[in-house]
Amino acid sequence: MKILGIDPGLRTTGFGLIEKQGQKIFYLASGTIKTTDGTLPDRLKTIFSSVAEIVERYQPDCAAVEKVFVNVNPQSTLLLGQARGAAICALVNADLEVAEYTALQVKQGVVGHGKAKKEQVQEMVQRLLQLPCLPGTDAADALGVAICHAHSGDTLSALSNLAPGLAKRGLRVKGGRLIG
Amino acid sequence: MKILGIDPGLRTTGFGLIEKQGQKIFYLASGTIKTTDGTLPDRLKTIFSSVAEIVERYQPDCAAVEKVFVNVNPQSTLLLGQARGAAICALVNADLEVAEYTALQVKQGVVGHGKAKKEQVQEMVQRLLQLPCLPGTDAADALGVAICHAHSGDTLSALSNLAPGLAKRGLRVKGGRLIG
Repeated sequence: MKILGIDPGLRTTGFGLIEKQGQKIFYLASGTIKTTDGTLPDRLKTIFSSVAEIVERYQPDCAAVEKVFVNVNPQSTLLLGQARGAAICALVNADLEVAEYTALQVKQGVVGHGKAKKEQVQEMVQRLLQLPCLPGTDAADALGVAICHAHSGDTLSALSNLAPGLAKRGLRVKGGRLIG
Repeated sequence: MKILGIDPGLRTTGFGLIEKQGQKIFYLASGTIKTTDGTLPDRLKTIFSSVAEIVERYQPDCAAVEKVFVNVNPQSTLLLGQARGAAICALVNADLEVAEYTALQVKQGVVGHGKAKKEQVQEMVQRLLQLPCLPGTDAADALGVAICHAHSGDTLSALSNLAPGLAKRGLRVKGGRLIG
């Protein structure tokens, strides 16, 4: 099962793709979508079409998007909301199920506690996906939200529909019988 | 020239289509997109695909979207931003130029002053487009932003590219010569 994680932003949108096989996760791809120039509609178009292109190229089975925090500046919040709307539209337009996780949930899912710093998320993402180097913060957050989704009940149940029993931790087949 | 006006919102997105011929404007269609049920990604998908369907059906030449005001509630601002992002994505994905106008500009463009009430916008939209009845507030705002764009320099210059001279007020052809 391929999971696409997205960390949306108007200037920089991070993306990260991982493959989940049973309880194991593997790195597929990651990067950032930059939109510094142009009008707001132009920038939203860049986010939308770039996410659509990533989906087209990597054919993920599902997607997870970080719930953005509300900024102290209302105008920034509005801009961030529009960027997030553009990214989600590209996902749902490709008929992908979209899960949402807060930054707290991502930190808990990746590092183990909600007070983890950005660097700790980067380091744990590097370790969990056995990357040769530290991923950038935006890509790390996007990979983090994908990892968070990989560990959630949603993908476990989705996977258990595909391969009953194999998805749940501790279940295995032995001598032709499923063992709990 | 067909202009599609959009008044975005997460619960209700208004749309309005007008045709501009020289200095005259005509009503084509209007309505609302309602998204009260479902998850946020579902609701954004409804807005995106509905706007895409309107564009597909009516083939507008350009679009204008109301700039939403920042809400006192940051969470509402974020939701509104995402809805607006979804609507704009559907427009730019169809390669439409998107102009943006504030509510103040729409009121000034339609009623003549920025302090106009909602009812005054509705009444002026009804009068300008010779409608048989008062349009709903969301549709009236969407038609209002389309009217505002019809009266702006952008469409005048765009139209003058198509039919040089005819678009600008006061210019006319007489005896085979363009008269200012």
